[in-house]
Amino acid sequence: MPELRKDPVVGRWVIIATERARRPSDFAAAEPVRPTGTGCPFCPGREATTPPEILAGRAQGGPNEPGWSYRVIANKFPALRIEGDLEPTGEGLFDRMNGVGAHEIVIETPDHAASLATLSTDAVAGVLLAFRERIRDLKKDPRFEYVLVFKNHGEAAGASLEHPHSQLIATPIIPIMVADELAGSARYYAMKERCVWCDILRQERRGGRRRILEANGFVALAPFAPRFPFETWVLPIAHGAAYEDSSPDQLRGLAGLLGDFVRRMNRVLGDPPFNFMLHTAPLRDAPGDSFHWHLEIIPKLTHVAGFEWGSGFFINAMPPEDAAAALRAGG
Amino acid sequence: MPELRKDPVVGRWVIIATERARRPSDFAAAEPVRPTGTGCPFCPGREATTPPEILAGRAQGGPNEPGWSYRVIANKFPALRIEGDLEPTGEGLFDRMNGVGAHEIVIETPDHAASLATLSTDAVAGVLLAFRERIRDLKKDPRFEYVLVFKNHGEAAGASLEHPHSQLIATPIIPIMVADELAGSARYYAMKERCVWCDILRQERRGGRRRILEANGFVALAPFAPRFPFETWVLPIAHGAAYEDSSPDQLRGLAGLLGDFVRRMNRVLGDPPFNFMLHTAPLRDAPGDSFHWHLEIIPKLTHVAGFEWGSGFFINAMPPEDAAAALRAGG
Repeated sequence: MPELRKDPVVGRWVIIATERARRPSDFAAAEPVRPTGTGCPFCPGREATTPPEILAGRAQGGPNEPGWSYRVIANKFPALRIEGDLEPTGEGLFDRMNGVGAHEIVIETPDHAASLATLSTDAVAGVLLAFRERIRDLKKDPRFEYVLVFKNHGEAAGASLEHPHSQLIATPIIPIMVADELAGSARYYAMKERCVWCDILRQERRGGRRRILEANGFVALAPFAPRFPFETWVLPIAHGAAYEDSSPDQLRGLAGLLGDFVRRMNRVLGDPPFNFMLHTAPLRDAPGDSFHWHLEIIPKLTHVAGFEWGSGFFINAMPPEDAAAALRAGG
Repeated sequence: MPELRKDPVVGRWVIIATERARRPSDFAAAEPVRPTGTGCPFCPGREATTPPEILAGRAQGGPNEPGWSYRVIANKFPALRIEGDLEPTGEGLFDRMNGVGAHEIVIETPDHAASLATLSTDAVAGVLLAFRERIRDLKKDPRFEYVLVFKNHGEAAGASLEHPHSQLIATPIIPIMVADELAGSARYYAMKERCVWCDILRQERRGGRRRILEANGFVALAPFAPRFPFETWVLPIAHGAAYEDSSPDQLRGLAGLLGDFVRRMNRVLGDPPFNFMLHTAPLRDAPGDSFHWHLEIIPKLTHVAGFEWGSGFFINAMPPEDAAAALRAGG
């Protein structure tokens, strides 16, 4: 059973993923070998090699048969396990609990060689709608406080399989980075009675220097204080705290902007590895007025080094105004 | 001039290092080419190609001549600049100030091919003493609140030059990770009237499962909730908040333990890239009773991916008890 452990000084939780445990010598090995198209467990016709599907978009065929446009399955090597209760216990100074949660994979397309840059807007919209349905379903489990949706594209960004996919992890604790955003948003709201994200949108749409794209009710912008070169945030212009309240029309709009953005990023940066992470409201007691859901996209272009890990400060050699200009011009 | 910018939601500062700015196409390029021994600016005889030395250990020769055992120089491409004042200004919602600070390099040895694993204890002690002297000197500059000492070893850990070196960055703000540790330590002290780090040391030295090494008044241990496989903390057993108050004898003891640890790590993990970061008290109003200085060492063995960047949760597939056992056995 994986374990959740809390640092006694800073309160940061980590997942000790015992189900993925490896021998020390495994960490010394070179880069893992990734299955190519011919051995890929996510390709059509190999549905039986994955856990059974939880959700799928399909025009034909039965469950776990070919004919799907996307498939959601349980992760075969989950960071957190769906069974059991938290059972918090102590070990002297230290706190731990069972690593209870859900870890799912969204296989985005049957086409091994496709990507967010090449998929049709309809196909991407289907995936975005699958995120919504899975969040709505996981919300029914009272053990979960949060669902984090994310994508690792490319090996340097942490992808262990090449076939286009994204992931959801439902956690019994609100992640600290989301908690920090919620707290900051609530402080601003207490002071101004306005959503800080709406204020940022107003200022950045007017100023324009850090705006990259605007379409279908969404804005892609380079944040004022980005941690990484070409870090990009995508926000809905209309205020909304919870992603899962989005309509299919809205998500179709997001799909269109997202495809445009990824194609620009690929042109400017040469198809870089990247991550995206969805920051939406927690599943319980969502702060509807102060929080504003958004997507954070970070191309993996540089190494994070000792100064960053030791300080929490990030050094970024690409001013966001220049990054936005390059991405605007890359259309 | 580099700029310090603050995220308006979470309050995280980043350094926009304009002096290191590159064109968008530079980020799309492959890994940078690193000078080999023959072109290395840190090798003896090339002192004139670096900024003049601020401090050096030498048995012979004059300043900026060969004969040194270590050299401290200003970084030629500093993340922060020594000149000027902070001049905080606003841009609507946003806050920025001038990127004022110090960024120094400690060239640890004249031997290009050496490392912490091969240097003599005396040589490592000289470097540790140089850190102490530089912190004491930078403390005199009232613009600085903190000095972070760190090392990037190996390209995957962010090193851009191969020659053994570490770095110091003096910042006008206490870094958020240090601030979090200070706050957690102060909360614990307010509750218990004891140092949380001293309590961790007592529990871990008694329990032993996560203890790796103990010698010369220092302990190397695998933390209870490590972010990374084989993450290791080194703490002095005797309470002390400020690294720069250490005696030369203490630092010689640390040098001995550090060499032993790095050799074990190299045997178990095959000379991995790694970072270390020194967490010491801030330069002003140091919390002498509640904080306890320490070194954090993180081998670079895995990719940090979307879940970590989006949540602040870390997934670690190596239980610290197993990591400590492997490193103990690797002696």
